[in-house]
Amino acid sequence: MTVRQKLYEGKAKIIYVTDDPNILLTHFKDDATAFNAQKRGSIVGKGEMNCAISSHLFQQLEARGIRTHWIDRPSPNEMRVKAVKILPIEVVVRNIAAGSLCQQTGIPLGTVLQQPLVEFYYKNDDLGDPLLTLDRLLLLELATPEQVDQLRATALQINQLLSEFFQNCDITLVDFKLEFGLDATGDLLLADEISPDTCRLWNQAVTDPTQRVMDKDRFRHDLGNVEDAYRQVLDRVLAQPIQP
Amino acid sequence: MTVRQKLYEGKAKIIYVTDDPNILLTHFKDDATAFNAQKRGSIVGKGEMNCAISSHLFQQLEARGIRTHWIDRPSPNEMRVKAVKILPIEVVVRNIAAGSLCQQTGIPLGTVLQQPLVEFYYKNDDLGDPLLTLDRLLLLELATPEQVDQLRATALQINQLLSEFFQNCDITLVDFKLEFGLDATGDLLLADEISPDTCRLWNQAVTDPTQRVMDKDRFRHDLGNVEDAYRQVLDRVLAQPIQP
Ligand SMILES: Nc1ncnc2c1ncn2[C@@H]1O[C@H](COP(=O)(O)OP(=O)(O)OP(=O)(O)O)[C@@H](O)[C@H]1O
Ligand SMILES: Nc1ncnc2c1ncn2[C@@H]1O[C@H](COP(=O)(O)OP(=O)(O)OP(=O)(O)O)[C@@H](O)[C@H]1O
Ligand SMILES: [Mg+2]
Ligand SMILES: [Mg+2]
Repeated sequence: MTVRQKLYEGKAKIIYVTDDPNILLTHFKDDATAFNAQKRGSIVGKGEMNCAISSHLFQQLEARGIRTHWIDRPSPNEMRVKAVKILPIEVVVRNIAAGSLCQQTGIPLGTVLQQPLVEFYYKNDDLGDPLLTLDRLLLLELATPEQVDQLRATALQINQLLSEFFQNCDITLVDFKLEFGLDATGDLLLADEISPDTCRLWNQAVTDPTQRVMDKDRFRHDLGNVEDAYRQVLDRVLAQPIQP
Repeated sequence: MTVRQKLYEGKAKIIYVTDDPNILLTHFKDDATAFNAQKRGSIVGKGEMNCAISSHLFQQLEARGIRTHWIDRPSPNEMRVKAVKILPIEVVVRNIAAGSLCQQTGIPLGTVLQQPLVEFYYKNDDLGDPLLTLDRLLLLELATPEQVDQLRATALQINQLLSEFFQNCDITLVDFKLEFGLDATGDLLLADEISPDTCRLWNQAVTDPTQRVMDKDRFRHDLGNVEDAYRQVLDRVLAQPIQP
């Protein structure tokens, strides 16, 4: 067994280099953070669950023509991925108002948006991942105008595919965060993870606004039963076969 | 003498109704606030100075074809204006990076922007006047897409006129905030005030970053000599004749 070389340790994952410079190994941790890492904790089994959920969703998206970094899942909490240069942009798609959108606009929690809202945030922990206007994104040269168009179009396509997928799980996809990166040839790939850490997911069988939450908001707002919620998402996601 | 009827008292001005429903009287106060009214104080003579500076600048803009609410200045700290329905949007134009732009993007203070940046903020004290993306502005129905185009174009025109004006005063116009409103016929007019309370103004003769400040940042950051700075702006502004 060879000793692994860490490339980067983030808040939720460790990235290791591999023998192939174009391939990285992503190790999913149980660590959980919220509010720009001011709140810290751990969700038992999260690493394995998020790795399994992410892997299933990346495969489903690939089957529908979305280019992702996903290669395979060599062990329960490890994902092999194509190495990319991550764009320092968090692409958020919202179907229903929640979180910072409500806080910053006064739109009531749960308001169904007439059309999905695509938003860009500056992936910069020191600055607290602030909201970006298009002008600010371009001023900071975080992406070219063509890349912005591609990010928006791809994010909306992913939203349609994931919304339909979760609908089949009797789960409402409220909003989610995506990260994209450029591979060695300059192509844009969907990267990072898609999990209850990065999506807001509401159980359609439940109306109570705190009981319906199946995502990291349970951890953020101390709603309890965090592991159970993640386990429920895992079970429902894995029950859906990949559909070409 | 008739007792005046207050329509509204804000942080820096009192608005009175007049006999004519299309005309309001704006009384400029010496009160100063900053950081969403968390910091409060008073700047001696500010009411008169801001009323004089605003009046002069509105007249200069009118002379160059910008439609404003300004009618006249019946007394030192009073301005008669056309009554408008204020759009709940603060239109900010930036020529040089300062303030929240630096805090939220990491762009260093004083960076000259390649082109003026027009930004929209939600005029909502409860929410802390948050930055708006175009999508959020439209989602909140704060203005129509046509109005947004008109706001942006007019703001850029005003920026050119004011930048030139302040250049002639040996003052650099760093950034400023505008408010617009709709008059009884639905026309868009520049409203509110243009003063050291609402502009960042740097003395071109001075290089020291705290000494050059001639605006409300002296009050915000306790730089001292606030009254002197406002008086300097007043003197230089009034020394410039209105140019048609
Ligand atoms: N295919 C990939 N190639 C290179 N880096 C990737 C890839 N997929 C994800 N990453 C990056 O690896 C890191 C994953 O770690 P993690 O999610 O723990 O980071 P984080 O703490 O959430 O955020 P930050 O990115 O600010 O450190 C992220 O920086 C992510 O952008
Ligand atoms: N021509 C006008 N017609 C109607 N209202 C106006 C006109 N010009 C300015 N106003 C409004 O009058 C008020 C001026 O008061 P002031 O500047 O003290 O308000 P403020 O405390 O800065 O902010 P707020 O607008 O949040 O109260 C503002 O609400 C402004 O939008
Ligand atoms: Mg992450
Ligand atoms: Mg005001």
